[in-house]
Amino acid sequence: MARGFGKKIRQKNTENSGFGSNASGRFINKDGLPNVKRTGVNVFNRLSWYHTMLNLSTFRFLSYLVICYILVNLVFALIYYLIGVQHLTGIDKSDPFNEFIDVFFFSSQTFTTVGYGRIAPVGFMASLVATFEAFLGLLTFAIATGLFYGRFSRPRAYLRFSDIAVIAPFKDVTALMFRLAPYKNNALTDADVILSAAIEVIEDGVPKSNFYRLETQLGKINTLALNWTVVHKIDENSPFYGFSEDDFRTTDIELIVQIRAFDEVFSNTVVQRSSYVTGEIIYGARFVPMYYPNKENLSTILDLDKINEYEKQELPVLTGNKE
Amino acid sequence: MARGFGKKIRQKNTENSGFGSNASGRFINKDGLPNVKRTGVNVFNRLSWYHTMLNLSTFRFLSYLVICYILVNLVFALIYYLIGVQHLTGIDKSDPFNEFIDVFFFSSQTFTTVGYGRIAPVGFMASLVATFEAFLGLLTFAIATGLFYGRFSRPRAYLRFSDIAVIAPFKDVTALMFRLAPYKNNALTDADVILSAAIEVIEDGVPKSNFYRLETQLGKINTLALNWTVVHKIDENSPFYGFSEDDFRTTDIELIVQIRAFDEVFSNTVVQRSSYVTGEIIYGARFVPMYYPNKENLSTILDLDKINEYEKQELPVLTGNKE
Amino acid sequence: MARGFGKKIRQKNTENSGFGSNASGRFINKDGLPNVKRTGVNVFNRLSWYHTMLNLSTFRFLSYLVICYILVNLVFALIYYLIGVQHLTGIDKSDPFNEFIDVFFFSSQTFTTVGYGRIAPVGFMASLVATFEAFLGLLTFAIATGLFYGRFSRPRAYLRFSDIAVIAPFKDVTALMFRLAPYKNNALTDADVILSAAIEVIEDGVPKSNFYRLETQLGKINTLALNWTVVHKIDENSPFYGFSEDDFRTTDIELIVQIRAFDEVFSNTVVQRSSYVTGEIIYGARFVPMYYPNKENLSTILDLDKINEYEKQELPVLTGNKE
Amino acid sequence: MARGFGKKIRQKNTENSGFGSNASGRFINKDGLPNVKRTGVNVFNRLSWYHTMLNLSTFRFLSYLVICYILVNLVFALIYYLIGVQHLTGIDKSDPFNEFIDVFFFSSQTFTTVGYGRIAPVGFMASLVATFEAFLGLLTFAIATGLFYGRFSRPRAYLRFSDIAVIAPFKDVTALMFRLAPYKNNALTDADVILSAAIEVIEDGVPKSNFYRLETQLGKINTLALNWTVVHKIDENSPFYGFSEDDFRTTDIELIVQIRAFDEVFSNTVVQRSSYVTGEIIYGARFVPMYYPNKENLSTILDLDKINEYEKQELPVLTGNKE
Repeated sequence: MARGFGKKIRQKNTENSGFGSNASGRFINKDGLPNVKRTGVNVFNRLSWYHTMLNLSTFRFLSYLVICYILVNLVFALIYYLIGVQHLTGIDKSDPFNEFIDVFFFSSQTFTTVGYGRIAPVGFMASLVATFEAFLGLLTFAIATGLFYGRFSRPRAYLRFSDIAVIAPFKDVTALMFRLAPYKNNALTDADVILSAAIEVIEDGVPKSNFYRLETQLGKINTLALNWTVVHKIDENSPFYGFSEDDFRTTDIELIVQIRAFDEVFSNTVVQRSSYVTGEIIYGARFVPMYYPNKENLSTILDLDKINEYEKQELPVLTGNKE
Repeated sequence: MARGFGKKIRQKNTENSGFGSNASGRFINKDGLPNVKRTGVNVFNRLSWYHTMLNLSTFRFLSYLVICYILVNLVFALIYYLIGVQHLTGIDKSDPFNEFIDVFFFSSQTFTTVGYGRIAPVGFMASLVATFEAFLGLLTFAIATGLFYGRFSRPRAYLRFSDIAVIAPFKDVTALMFRLAPYKNNALTDADVILSAAIEVIEDGVPKSNFYRLETQLGKINTLALNWTVVHKIDENSPFYGFSEDDFRTTDIELIVQIRAFDEVFSNTVVQRSSYVTGEIIYGARFVPMYYPNKENLSTILDLDKINEYEKQELPVLTGNKE
Repeated sequence: MARGFGKKIRQKNTENSGFGSNASGRFINKDGLPNVKRTGVNVFNRLSWYHTMLNLSTFRFLSYLVICYILVNLVFALIYYLIGVQHLTGIDKSDPFNEFIDVFFFSSQTFTTVGYGRIAPVGFMASLVATFEAFLGLLTFAIATGLFYGRFSRPRAYLRFSDIAVIAPFKDVTALMFRLAPYKNNALTDADVILSAAIEVIEDGVPKSNFYRLETQLGKINTLALNWTVVHKIDENSPFYGFSEDDFRTTDIELIVQIRAFDEVFSNTVVQRSSYVTGEIIYGARFVPMYYPNKENLSTILDLDKINEYEKQELPVLTGNKE
Repeated sequence: MARGFGKKIRQKNTENSGFGSNASGRFINKDGLPNVKRTGVNVFNRLSWYHTMLNLSTFRFLSYLVICYILVNLVFALIYYLIGVQHLTGIDKSDPFNEFIDVFFFSSQTFTTVGYGRIAPVGFMASLVATFEAFLGLLTFAIATGLFYGRFSRPRAYLRFSDIAVIAPFKDVTALMFRLAPYKNNALTDADVILSAAIEVIEDGVPKSNFYRLETQLGKINTLALNWTVVHKIDENSPFYGFSEDDFRTTDIELIVQIRAFDEVFSNTVVQRSSYVTGEIIYGARFVPMYYPNKENLSTILDLDKINEYEKQELPVLTGNKE
């Protein structure tokens, strides 16, 4: 599956990608996280449960909370039941099931500190467990408060990347382009891009991934409010200089993108990464514009649905027009 | 309405404004946010509700909280009512309205976990709903805690900009000036300014916005405690070199200002932006000082009401005294 | 009181102090805040109440919370009392004072959501007010949670500056020195110092403050764990070159210090400022060391009580040995 | 125990380590904190209790919370008991022990605001204390919320350093190497390293610690997802140039490492430090690789258990092959 580029790339590769040249598979997943698995230490040391809770979807996060709540109440209900329902006032003692139900709801009324008092503990053991449960309930909601805040205050760039990159004409040569746009009502300024490429090359018959830093036309923009088309000119300084359409189709290429910007609401630097691999680079295409003036000509409309729209475009056979 | 500058500006325009040259209307609103509307993805994906909650006025934020509280209680009251008031103790059953009132207040006592117990759930369904409502109440207040903290801990520069910019004499030439001052008891240090201008020019008969970076006399100041008058000298390096009073009145100009400073209380970098468009630039005026020593000569008084005060000032016909 | 330096300072003064040359009094107070008062906008706009709450002493902060709590309960008690004690169950109706006491405690039991239920609301109005009070109580504690967190999570450098600066011999010339040390169990790295001086000079008979950036021997240190003695060599590049003991005593001088470091616990940059004015600079003295090895020679002891200890030291008459 | 290096090191030592040359013992402990003790100010001023609470282990932190909870309830129980149990309804008055138990549980039900109401205060004094206790309870849980959030939201690098550094062959010379790897599911980018060495030298017969900045092969890497082997080449620019195996064993050396990276989840810069002293540097060894492709060749596995694995490796007698 992995096919290297046999021809010579004259550009010097960089060694500070952080990936070894014999690491395998995609380096950076589409969501920006590195494609690395860890083994060795046990799973509890290997997981930052806080990072995990922050990365859960809202639905799963809330589901976990509800499940925890039910489990905790079941456990405490069992403890109260074992202590004896006679130590709780107001229990419906008509049959064991009703007893358990009332004990369960007593537990939940204690855990949430709602404490109606219709059911209340009498005697040492039941009171002690209730004392501890109410305390635990408050700590649990203290932790939940922190998790909620951590989840929604987490600074994120909220950028949408185009699914594909294109090789398009640019001035008198060709260029590699992809684009991105902010899709939420956050305000990003001072954005910069770092673009590099991992290209599989054959050295002494052995395939090996080399990393190259790719120069971009604009390294920095002041206000990231419209879309940003990142342009890497394929000239003599590009490792892609002289690549044919076929080379782009058959060589294992991975473009690694990192956007860094300043979010004015959070007053924080945010970073988002993505990557494009061989099948996601389209040779001979150009993006269609995705913003236009509004009717009254007083504002600009950014149409996020157009981010992947491109049209076919004839290119010379070799990118960068080598010789 | 849009009138371009026909004469030649010799300065090179910059391309990293982030706005295309055919975007329309004001680029940056007076409040510093970009004048861009997004379409395409659905509104829930397009809005970061947390950013939205942070940007609401205090009054609207509190109103939303109260409305939510009432709605939630109405919904739960309805559920309890449908389950049957006989599953709640202590309900005033004199008439259906009183029943609903008591059920509503039972709901609020559960949601806030106050749980007096005068009204308390009996039986499976009512207890179950109450169990869930108390849990929901706690989560809601966990979220509210996060929102409150997010709102008031959000780092902001609290700068007041002068409403107008002036073209004033400066040393032997003229200069574009505006000023700003911190108006709250925060402590800002290491402030810097980035100033650029969008000028509409006619190229081949087509109006087009070009962006220019404007140099300022002082790019950085150590302590932002008094007002800061930002000065852009109109000499040969300025795109405004040779502009007449009429040019300033008829050309579509937008000055885009970004102030960045370090807030010592939050230990965070804060950014504030603003902009000045053609009607907000006054030709031939100078700001009057807005700070003075106090009576005992031991401290300095900054009078924020004077931030827009200026006096008329004769200027040569052409700024920068071209030829 | 203000006495300027008549002799010529050859160094170029800087203009980016942020203070005008005709501001008056001390520029930076000993606690690092600028000595500026604001007028003009009303006090509510001028105060960031959050910054204010963060800067209160712990005692005052807690006192304000208690006072608020009592006031809120008094107000609600009054409302319940006006609605009528017959709408609350379990009230001790022996006399109006006892009634009010019970109503007050009912209010506090509602506000804190403890809700014992011995006293509970009956009827529409009392229930409605209680519903609102419990809601308000939860929001208040949500805000209090944020304030507590804001107060103790606020990154601070916790540096102690020596009360005095000294003019001491240094290698073959003299130097201005002061020192500082971290006094808490925080861990600071990558500390740097920015030192400047405001010197009152007589220009054309008019006293005027000029600002000078002072170079320091070490601009940056890696680990700020022991004390740091900041050394400004008084050579030809110093504005103090050629100052006599008398000049240091009679000229209005203010040294403005800013230390910036990275706190490893908060992962945040922290800044602390201080200043030294004329009376706080001692001519002809040197600091005594304030750290020493422990008994077993395995660790270093930093004695914070010695931070101001110095011994007298003979100096040439003119600093910098200007002949 | 401390043995200095008698031979001449030609490299210039740096003075900005922040440690004096006569500080003693290890400078930086293995956990990255400086080996300095403070005296002089009283312990409450010297401790930031928030930093202390953040650095406690989870077990000790929770234990402290539980102990506090019990103590507070004991104190309040005593107060209620002294006021008189007749001011609390529903107390089991069979004997003084049962009375105290009920009073204790009443206290906990008030502190947690669970307030069943089976026991409730009657009369001024008991109600007043309960009012205050419920208030205190809410503030305590407000503080606990902040501490929980502070603890788990604290940005940390979660790096594991190899326990040992090695002197290994590197290209045509030798190099000092150690390695580190992220062991949790956080995502670090833009990592850089600052490496310095404290070497004890004999100057005029007196042992003294000199600090040297050590250059590394790669100062910066883009993605810190696999392990990073930091390489300091021992050539003419290294203070270790010409060290024999014996020199490495007998000279007091301390390598001080600081890694700084950007955590994409917290959007924050994180720093972690460590150090290696003489016994922890192995002469003539090389690390074995700790990552390899997974079975399907689609991802990379990082085996954290291998971080300390090395194999013996012959070296020339003098590092850097001096003459």
